[in-house]
Amino acid sequence: MLRKTVAAHRMKEYEVSMVEGLAAAGSRDLQDRIRGRRALLVATPTVAKLYAHAIHAALAERGGDVSMMVLRCDESTKALDQVVAVCNEALRHGLDRRAVLVGVGGGVCTDIVTMAASWIRRGLGYIKVPTTLIGLVDSGIGIKGAVNFEGKKSYVGCFYPPESVLLDPTFLATLPQRHMRSGLAEIIKTALACDPELFELVERHGREFRPVGPDGGQPAVRRIVWQSTVRLLEAMEPNLHEDQTQERVADLGHTFSPALESASGFTIPHGEAVAVDIALCAVLATHLGLLASATRDRILRLFQDVGLPCWDPVLTAGLCRSAMEEAARHRSGRPNLVVPIAIGDTTFMRDLESVSHDDLHASIRQLRGCLEGSPAIGG
Amino acid sequence: MLRKTVAAHRMKEYEVSMVEGLAAAGSRDLQDRIRGRRALLVATPTVAKLYAHAIHAALAERGGDVSMMVLRCDESTKALDQVVAVCNEALRHGLDRRAVLVGVGGGVCTDIVTMAASWIRRGLGYIKVPTTLIGLVDSGIGIKGAVNFEGKKSYVGCFYPPESVLLDPTFLATLPQRHMRSGLAEIIKTALACDPELFELVERHGREFRPVGPDGGQPAVRRIVWQSTVRLLEAMEPNLHEDQTQERVADLGHTFSPALESASGFTIPHGEAVAVDIALCAVLATHLGLLASATRDRILRLFQDVGLPCWDPVLTAGLCRSAMEEAARHRSGRPNLVVPIAIGDTTFMRDLESVSHDDLHASIRQLRGCLEGSPAIGG
Repeated sequence: MLRKTVAAHRMKEYEVSMVEGLAAAGSRDLQDRIRGRRALLVATPTVAKLYAHAIHAALAERGGDVSMMVLRCDESTKALDQVVAVCNEALRHGLDRRAVLVGVGGGVCTDIVTMAASWIRRGLGYIKVPTTLIGLVDSGIGIKGAVNFEGKKSYVGCFYPPESVLLDPTFLATLPQRHMRSGLAEIIKTALACDPELFELVERHGREFRPVGPDGGQPAVRRIVWQSTVRLLEAMEPNLHEDQTQERVADLGHTFSPALESASGFTIPHGEAVAVDIALCAVLATHLGLLASATRDRILRLFQDVGLPCWDPVLTAGLCRSAMEEAARHRSGRPNLVVPIAIGDTTFMRDLESVSHDDLHASIRQLRGCLEGSPAIGG
Repeated sequence: MLRKTVAAHRMKEYEVSMVEGLAAAGSRDLQDRIRGRRALLVATPTVAKLYAHAIHAALAERGGDVSMMVLRCDESTKALDQVVAVCNEALRHGLDRRAVLVGVGGGVCTDIVTMAASWIRRGLGYIKVPTTLIGLVDSGIGIKGAVNFEGKKSYVGCFYPPESVLLDPTFLATLPQRHMRSGLAEIIKTALACDPELFELVERHGREFRPVGPDGGQPAVRRIVWQSTVRLLEAMEPNLHEDQTQERVADLGHTFSPALESASGFTIPHGEAVAVDIALCAVLATHLGLLASATRDRILRLFQDVGLPCWDPVLTAGLCRSAMEEAARHRSGRPNLVVPIAIGDTTFMRDLESVSHDDLHASIRQLRGCLEGSPAIGG
């Protein structure tokens, strides 16, 4: 048979940098990265009012050919028509092949910009500027974009690397406390999965994560944000396209949480669902003899310290079992549930049989016991 | 400044193979590549009737979990809603992450399948089965997909490699003669750009490209198809994502042709427009002292031999000048017009100034002269 193998590797690197005060007068970080190209800034209404209009005005004032679009978007409106809206705006503003998109906002906004950039003229450059804590340490730093489709969460999307990601912790000054806690849950995920030192830092300084005025938070906050971001990037880097392995430590806290969010009618914010998921995994790990009970208690204590929930009334063994089955459907039959075995170390539950309905039921009961300080702990 | 560089390389290879009789009873080429995964076949109505229903039935009969969708598509309907239609069908048939799409059809069909595959769950595997001669030697063998958007040709798309491409020349038995000639224009492009031996083969056997019954054509036809495909793949391989250089020999015949197609209200088929474009470039090259007039005449003779046009009434210097300016807009200011300097060798016109309005006007006049055998040749 006549046969030719074609190498179709796409070689791309991108840069993640921590900067200060992108919206402040005189900041040149974004301008330096746009490098005289035509650009389209996309921001959500709140972010536009607080920061993006100022960023846009400063770029335009210095002669940049930059237009701006305000995109109303949240999880419930995250759909293809918003990607199409960005494409329309790009066409209207005559963006050429060298042009660049800039997404300034939370995870939904940067996801939509990621997809639009991957579509337009088969791929424009784009820059991500996450404005939420989740964005800074998790959803804004990778190469994935997705939207919901016909009721199916993140059914269509892409893997498409940005040119650069600018992390500006001064945005945290205006972040609502509940959003801040959600971001902390992702930081604790990363710390528990791969960095004991980071875990200790969060134990010492987690309570400093609160809106603190325009100076962008305490030095400890910046240090934790940067260390968490770098650690997660290091963990994801060998498998950014999710084509190397289906065992991903970054999935810690992300097996039961989608079911929790859904069962609550999306009234539980993502980060809080992640906290409950991790708390349950810690108790389950102890129940299965994989994690010292003192370490389990240390994990639960940290969540409580920073104001994150460890339990929710919608949490049932049935729900968790279905969530594991759903995870297995997406990972070639293996749930690959990530459970902690120490601070900074995890293992995978690779088979549905490794965690029975009874294990889940007992763990949920024990979790309630732990939280009530009852003698049921470890029982 | 705190900074981390992230490597986001996507490593992918794919296989292009020549096979025989995919729609014949007993063919296992497609089945072997689906490898027990759930699959969705997408085909155009004509291809479904002639081949794809039979392919689908054979796969299903042998126990494959394969569904099929008939997609009415052509250049005028090539839009996002058709990509969405494929996503809907994929969702309806419960395609999981391991599932595979199979596009059986011409360039529009495989473009739409390429895009749908790149979107669904952030990227499914897909297999391309081109059924036209253009598809076999050009549009069906690469990694690009695109659709028109708000009147802008190919404004949204992707670079997304298939798992494999199956080239089956037996499909040519039912291809209308005019489609066959269009494919020949792309073969002549590849031969003229990079393979003198292939050019000679087409000179000797070009007239054998005609519907010839179910045996799939003469051995010479198969040899030319395979050699042309491999040569074009070799030329494109180092720059498949078009991010390495904007000087592409495969752009030969593709600077003036889009303007010709558009000016004719899309009544000139793509391949015929490519032939006219190349003919003009050959005359222009001789006019500029870059190509021997005997070689120019050999090129024009080949087009005439196989029944391809070298001239069209819509061809004017103004149209060609605009087309070069349009090309320059897409290639960082350089038109990079590809002109032949010998059979199998080309050069690039890198500046708009290298080819004046008068050069174009004189070349068009000389082209008419050549075709009429008038003494104006070389004038």
